[in-house]
Amino acid sequence: MKPELLQAVPNERLQRQLRFLMQAERLRTVLRGSRISDGSRHENSAEHSWHLTLFALVLSEWASEAVDIGLVVKMLALHDLVEIECGDTPLFGTVSSGEQLAIEKAAALRIFGNLPNDQSVEFLGIWEEFENAATPSAKFAKALDRFQPLLLDHVVGGGTWVDFAVDEARVRKLTEAIHQNAPELAIAAEMIFVDAIANGWIKQSIKE
Amino acid sequence: MKPELLQAVPNERLQRQLRFLMQAERLRTVLRGSRISDGSRHENSAEHSWHLTLFALVLSEWASEAVDIGLVVKMLALHDLVEIECGDTPLFGTVSSGEQLAIEKAAALRIFGNLPNDQSVEFLGIWEEFENAATPSAKFAKALDRFQPLLLDHVVGGGTWVDFAVDEARVRKLTEAIHQNAPELAIAAEMIFVDAIANGWIKQSIKE
Repeated sequence: MKPELLQAVPNERLQRQLRFLMQAERLRTVLRGSRISDGSRHENSAEHSWHLTLFALVLSEWASEAVDIGLVVKMLALHDLVEIECGDTPLFGTVSSGEQLAIEKAAALRIFGNLPNDQSVEFLGIWEEFENAATPSAKFAKALDRFQPLLLDHVVGGGTWVDFAVDEARVRKLTEAIHQNAPELAIAAEMIFVDAIANGWIKQSIKE
Repeated sequence: MKPELLQAVPNERLQRQLRFLMQAERLRTVLRGSRISDGSRHENSAEHSWHLTLFALVLSEWASEAVDIGLVVKMLALHDLVEIECGDTPLFGTVSSGEQLAIEKAAALRIFGNLPNDQSVEFLGIWEEFENAATPSAKFAKALDRFQPLLLDHVVGGGTWVDFAVDEARVRKLTEAIHQNAPELAIAAEMIFVDAIANGWIKQSIKE
């Protein structure tokens, strides 16, 4: 819907909701480090969010604590919307995370601020709960967000591990959330690490 | 995760779930008729499914009957998975819908059949409920699935209406679900139709 026609929607609440949805749509123009499984192109953040929604629906039984699956789905559908303004920050990138968080918070206030006030507060709360990763639902959502890229990096034969020349210690640190919040998924992640190191896609860390 | 490593995941239930998720991922290679809002390329079905999830989360208050929003989200996340095998059937295409339904049903049985049996039954049931469009939740999900493309066709200045040279009567018939199941959204749809006809993007139907 073009902005000039959207302006004329008489129900102001609906108008705000449609403006939010039309802006959100741009998330698919944000490219991530991961490649899609056929290796033909990079994944975009909208597809990634959808894929994670499926992960939540299919894998919720493996959460180490009881989670609110509806809330996990909401978190994963919304978690990357700030990238419309900030772009994607690759896991293996080098931005200071404190600075990045402040920038993303400001973006979240603007983006969710397009919604009617009650929804704006609700969605911002969901986004912050995910970011803070302190509740069982948020911890599990974070674990899935770390697990999905491993499957893609492995299926394309290296992916972001090779692009960013990462070593085992770095990958393991970034995927701790999987071990803590979904131990059964961590077994699959471990198989992936061992195979990726054997293939030279992840550099083996020197043991002290 | 490469198939040969997936085969070695010791937990058979998890192995089936991961196989399903890796197959589902291919939905992003299925292109739809609609273009994304900047007009630069066609929308893929994975992004479309994510966008619809947001529509459900934001617009549920406009459903004409009480809906189970968690179920609506599940329906919309799953509804296009059959396209992995069948491809997208444009709304304005010419395939016989009875034949198409039988093909899609067979695909759904295969795709959801990758999951553990309990989830296979559950997901197939959700997909069928959406397809049958007989419950309040399914009717509302269908209305959103018809509403979202209107916003995209309008913002790009014609989109699939122009590509398929459709007239007003055809568009209105295909979007009846919006009027019946989300009347407030139908007001916005009506504004879009009037503007699209005025711009020559939808051909005016001759009144009898």
